[in-house]
Amino acid sequence: MSVTAAKGFQAAGIAAGIKENGNPDLALVVNTGPRRAAAGVFTSNRVKAAPVLWSEQVLKSGELTAVVLNSGGANACTGPKGFQDTHATAEKVAEVLEIGAGEVAVASTGLIGLLLPMDKLLPGVEAAAAQLSEHGGEKAAIAIKTTDTVHKTSVVTQDGWTVGGMAKGAGMLAPGLATMLVVLTTDADLPSDVLDQALRAATRTTFDRVDSDGCMSTNDTVLLLASGASEVTPEYAEFAEAVRTVCDDLGQQLIRDAEGASKDIKIEVVGAASEDDAVEVGRSIARNNLLKCAIHGEDPNWGRVLSAIGTTKAAFEPDQLNVAINGVWVCKNGGVGEDRDKVDMRYREVHIVADLAAGSETATIWTNDLTADYVHENSAYSS
Amino acid sequence: MSVTAAKGFQAAGIAAGIKENGNPDLALVVNTGPRRAAAGVFTSNRVKAAPVLWSEQVLKSGELTAVVLNSGGANACTGPKGFQDTHATAEKVAEVLEIGAGEVAVASTGLIGLLLPMDKLLPGVEAAAAQLSEHGGEKAAIAIKTTDTVHKTSVVTQDGWTVGGMAKGAGMLAPGLATMLVVLTTDADLPSDVLDQALRAATRTTFDRVDSDGCMSTNDTVLLLASGASEVTPEYAEFAEAVRTVCDDLGQQLIRDAEGASKDIKIEVVGAASEDDAVEVGRSIARNNLLKCAIHGEDPNWGRVLSAIGTTKAAFEPDQLNVAINGVWVCKNGGVGEDRDKVDMRYREVHIVADLAAGSETATIWTNDLTADYVHENSAYSS
Repeated sequence: MSVTAAKGFQAAGIAAGIKENGNPDLALVVNTGPRRAAAGVFTSNRVKAAPVLWSEQVLKSGELTAVVLNSGGANACTGPKGFQDTHATAEKVAEVLEIGAGEVAVASTGLIGLLLPMDKLLPGVEAAAAQLSEHGGEKAAIAIKTTDTVHKTSVVTQDGWTVGGMAKGAGMLAPGLATMLVVLTTDADLPSDVLDQALRAATRTTFDRVDSDGCMSTNDTVLLLASGASEVTPEYAEFAEAVRTVCDDLGQQLIRDAEGASKDIKIEVVGAASEDDAVEVGRSIARNNLLKCAIHGEDPNWGRVLSAIGTTKAAFEPDQLNVAINGVWVCKNGGVGEDRDKVDMRYREVHIVADLAAGSETATIWTNDLTADYVHENSAYSS
Repeated sequence: MSVTAAKGFQAAGIAAGIKENGNPDLALVVNTGPRRAAAGVFTSNRVKAAPVLWSEQVLKSGELTAVVLNSGGANACTGPKGFQDTHATAEKVAEVLEIGAGEVAVASTGLIGLLLPMDKLLPGVEAAAAQLSEHGGEKAAIAIKTTDTVHKTSVVTQDGWTVGGMAKGAGMLAPGLATMLVVLTTDADLPSDVLDQALRAATRTTFDRVDSDGCMSTNDTVLLLASGASEVTPEYAEFAEAVRTVCDDLGQQLIRDAEGASKDIKIEVVGAASEDDAVEVGRSIARNNLLKCAIHGEDPNWGRVLSAIGTTKAAFEPDQLNVAINGVWVCKNGGVGEDRDKVDMRYREVHIVADLAAGSETATIWTNDLTADYVHENSAYSS
């Protein structure tokens, strides 16, 4: 279902030959209207890929008609030629769809520092356009995979309108944003400022709180396109919740498919003086390599949780910290709590609660364990 | 030679039975005078182990007569009982040496969240005191090892005076400070404020710039004791340089022995607008798991260097960044530079230069690669 679950969208996914292994690598998503409202959120990495610079620019109009995405190359750190290639890609999409290049967002994912094979990509745009279909969402989702083992899609349908989407991402996942590429579509009839508000609110508590390996991408892009084809204008709260639900679901799928991971770790920070404190503490825990190794070894090593909390500026007193792992309060008042042998670590999901005992704010960050497979996947070849 | 290279010091290292495997686990260092000046620098982690809290307190006098160190348990996150145990340890040392407990610093290293076996530790203090010797420095260095594969010592001798030291540390190495335990001794005749100044200056550019795994310990302690036994009062600059040299040497030994590492990575940031910018960028690169995996795989993946730089607030323009790996400028002006196939990655030391092209300040950070062995060592058992 993916990006074509909502009415007013067509999509395609093909193998253009950008990837040397012949796997699908080019996706096209087209909004057939009647509306063209759109919003986007991009990586906060200051080293931004050419397609991010391009898409930020075209989105200033608040409208998009098409998104072209490629895997097999990030087109990041590729200089003026890289930007020219992104521009040429948008122009090609515009030509085959008979629209303007300023209505086309571009997204790329893959190895940084390589120019894209434009002799494969541009003919690929024509081939993809020829296959555009209201049932093409799944193929599009497959074509944006890199090291993903599965493609990721999600749909929420309400009274007469729908939000759907696709995502790719398996490594270099860290806040701001936490995923490589996401395209969301809706047939709700809403203007771009409402889309922007709902999208920013959703990503702040979903993708921005997925932190698989602490590494922030140069290419992160989340787009939301609205066709208005349902002729329904939902209440803001209802729409925002639908967008949040789809983002949350896709974010969870990213964590479950993270490179080499054997555990999904939910870090719930409670008792914080502020939400910012809770997020800072959650991220610090999520990025502690020693803890991530311990979780991999099914070792409820709460000392590594405390040492991670201790590196933050959050409000807390060391002798009031409490930590539960899978429901067992192994650390109480900064010291030894319940018997750590009671902690059952056999399952894939691990739930850590860190209680700062300093207030009532909370935040949840998701991460993965650190495994030999992660090291292998990220050392055996360039990605 | 270690902590007994300088005149006026005795040391011992014994197996007290704190470690279940029977390896040496208790060290004692005693300043026999005539002077007792001392200085210390401690972890900036807000979750501080009991011995850190104790030693910070006793050092306020600017004097120390003895340091007792144990491996086999960090005595961190152990609550009031843990602090009582540290106090009892200092009292025991004071009793056997016939000094005051306020002259005794305590340092511990090992697993967080476990109480120390005081029934083993206190008799161990007596046994260690009985073996104190002017040749005991090496045994002391051996007794503070945890996952270290080798013990670490260093000595600099000048005209009539000496600075020597020992260190332990192999994991949980990150700035502020970067090592678990270090004791330095000198027979120079200098007051505590001069020791403090020299020690802080030295650690700022040595231990603080060693970042093996981004994880900051609860127990980091660096002590400098001066006996005055040489009856020489060196010039400050000369003394400070000797302290810095010993710290730098010990810091390098920590990196070379980092858990599971197969590469030592020197990250030299140049062209920075400020030293702070250079350090921030160096640390960001040093903590990028994807880059550390790539280096392990002998892959000169400069895109991961740029994506790490891009997460900082340092002054730079993305299209002016340059990166060299082992002498080959693989990234020029933010894009593709020399042929990456020219980079020879076969050797243990890897040298990354990141040029921010924004000024003339520099800083060097040392780190290691991320390996399956690191994951294994930190997941197979609690440490």
